[in-house]
Amino acid sequence: MRNFMDNPALVDVTRGTLTESLHRGSVAVVDTEGRLVCGIGDVEARVFPRSAIKALQALPLVESGAADALDLTDAELALACASHSGEEVHANAARVMLMKAGLSEDDLECGPQWPKRMEDAAKLILADEVPCGLHNNCSGKHAGFLGLARTMGVPTRGYIEPDHPVQLEVRLAMEQLTGDTLTEDVCGTDGCSIPTYASPLRSFAKAFAAFGTGEGLEPLRADAARRIYDACINEAYMVAGADRFCTRVMEAFRGRVFVKTGAEGVFCAAVPELGFGIALKCDDGATRAAEAMMATVLEVLLDLDEDEAALLDGLVNPPILTRRGTQAGHIRPREEFLSALESDLQQS
Amino acid sequence: MRNFMDNPALVDVTRGTLTESLHRGSVAVVDTEGRLVCGIGDVEARVFPRSAIKALQALPLVESGAADALDLTDAELALACASHSGEEVHANAARVMLMKAGLSEDDLECGPQWPKRMEDAAKLILADEVPCGLHNNCSGKHAGFLGLARTMGVPTRGYIEPDHPVQLEVRLAMEQLTGDTLTEDVCGTDGCSIPTYASPLRSFAKAFAAFGTGEGLEPLRADAARRIYDACINEAYMVAGADRFCTRVMEAFRGRVFVKTGAEGVFCAAVPELGFGIALKCDDGATRAAEAMMATVLEVLLDLDEDEAALLDGLVNPPILTRRGTQAGHIRPREEFLSALESDLQQS
Repeated sequence: MRNFMDNPALVDVTRGTLTESLHRGSVAVVDTEGRLVCGIGDVEARVFPRSAIKALQALPLVESGAADALDLTDAELALACASHSGEEVHANAARVMLMKAGLSEDDLECGPQWPKRMEDAAKLILADEVPCGLHNNCSGKHAGFLGLARTMGVPTRGYIEPDHPVQLEVRLAMEQLTGDTLTEDVCGTDGCSIPTYASPLRSFAKAFAAFGTGEGLEPLRADAARRIYDACINEAYMVAGADRFCTRVMEAFRGRVFVKTGAEGVFCAAVPELGFGIALKCDDGATRAAEAMMATVLEVLLDLDEDEAALLDGLVNPPILTRRGTQAGHIRPREEFLSALESDLQQS
Repeated sequence: MRNFMDNPALVDVTRGTLTESLHRGSVAVVDTEGRLVCGIGDVEARVFPRSAIKALQALPLVESGAADALDLTDAELALACASHSGEEVHANAARVMLMKAGLSEDDLECGPQWPKRMEDAAKLILADEVPCGLHNNCSGKHAGFLGLARTMGVPTRGYIEPDHPVQLEVRLAMEQLTGDTLTEDVCGTDGCSIPTYASPLRSFAKAFAAFGTGEGLEPLRADAARRIYDACINEAYMVAGADRFCTRVMEAFRGRVFVKTGAEGVFCAAVPELGFGIALKCDDGATRAAEAMMATVLEVLLDLDEDEAALLDGLVNPPILTRRGTQAGHIRPREEFLSALESDLQQS
């Protein structure tokens, strides 16, 4: 078994004619039978999935009937799967989700976060406000957890704790989808204070193959997965926001792919037409590299139309800019990464 | 010769009981005779020094007599060596430097940048202003370049171009200090649009050993180095700002060390009492790792008093926090890094 420590260099960051920095990582592509279609680096080492599995963490919300009981819209379901930018539209939708559960922002236990974009931060500043839990990129997920707690008839306070009934439901779903046992020794605390359980990338890719196709899932779960998948595609802006990778890719691919970023360089995806799930991590936690890695995998996997190709080209090789906006270098996948992907896929 | 690609893992980022991410890199410690006291990873590969060598780039400003002709204060000299946070005090000092040269912010060619802290950005927003070149973290360096151009009697426009007399002076100083030839093939464009020339970490460490001690330098350059060193120590707030690594370390060590960060994970330092220069880079460009690496090297190298030890402890092992401010993990140097440092230093 290869080791986390020996993961290959996958992405270069150039300046002038030199490589200035480089990023290592690992990639797993798995089909609906759990077969590893492509494995680069160590795909068996446990990694924290962070926000990349929010769509899976939302399954109990739908399966339990809570989403129906609360009359959640597609936009609100998408927000439950989001790492949003804290724009007004996101914060407002989270507020409405909480209202539907008879709750308010005071019930959020995720902590505050400034909006991602300066123009959204500026709106708060000019209104003499400070950010609250609604602006936290995870507020929709938390509103979903709170709605589930209400529908289950359990206390809402402490819904972020590992032994709260909501988190136990979420953990059970993740154990079923990954096939892994998720015990305290692989549990960390996420940035929004809920538990995050480490599993191999291979397991997360398997889970997303099932999520995207419904294959191997019980009918109730397959329906819930379909509903969440469609909600994120139809309301891709709610999943991230302006100029964000996840929103841009899901909008451009109109249902062909589901993609979701996570902190510390994790990225997951589902490609239903191929029956594949994808999970990857940049070793050092860099989002710029995880995005280039995901764009590269999608570019190699899929037959692209002109618009899809143009979008992915820009995401595979984003420029490194000076503060005057001129190009000083770029991010680019390494040749070895491309050839490893292509050789694995030819064999499959 | 070892390769950039094989640099060892030096810093872990943990969550719960697991390593979530890791950072590789290389470290060079060199004495005034140019001897490599400690070399971890590839110290011969060329890396872009970025802002870590601003203090060396300021030497022509002082040596030429321009700093005296312009009547620059210690605070202004420190700002010329700064990657500041764009606080009001920094922007105002840059404005005064420009005024002393008969110039204004319109002459800056570095591009605009939002202040680093939200509270400083908020001041601009509330005043209905947008950031300008004065807020760029490099504005002091640029004001120094412009002052040098005026004193040299050359056109100020285009002072950022590689063939402008100011940049030729800066390149010559870097060639003399590193002993390397700096040609177009190792030239990149920095984020503030000036040329940045790649040299081995070993060369930068050698340059900082000379900068910190004056040894091996002509008297005029040794005097200029001493003046710049003292200015940065005396006005450490101008070199970075509130809660910044460089400011905190230089204030706490009261002249014992000079430290300066650069983009993409570069960090340089001078330790005059040992006659050492230090240069390091985190392969993937992460500042969090470069800071932990520099703090670790200083902790191993120096005999520390209580205050110095307390500060470095926090910088060697900073916590990873949730958005509620509770600890979820921490950054920590790897055992192999510590033992490599200690074994190299025992041999020296």
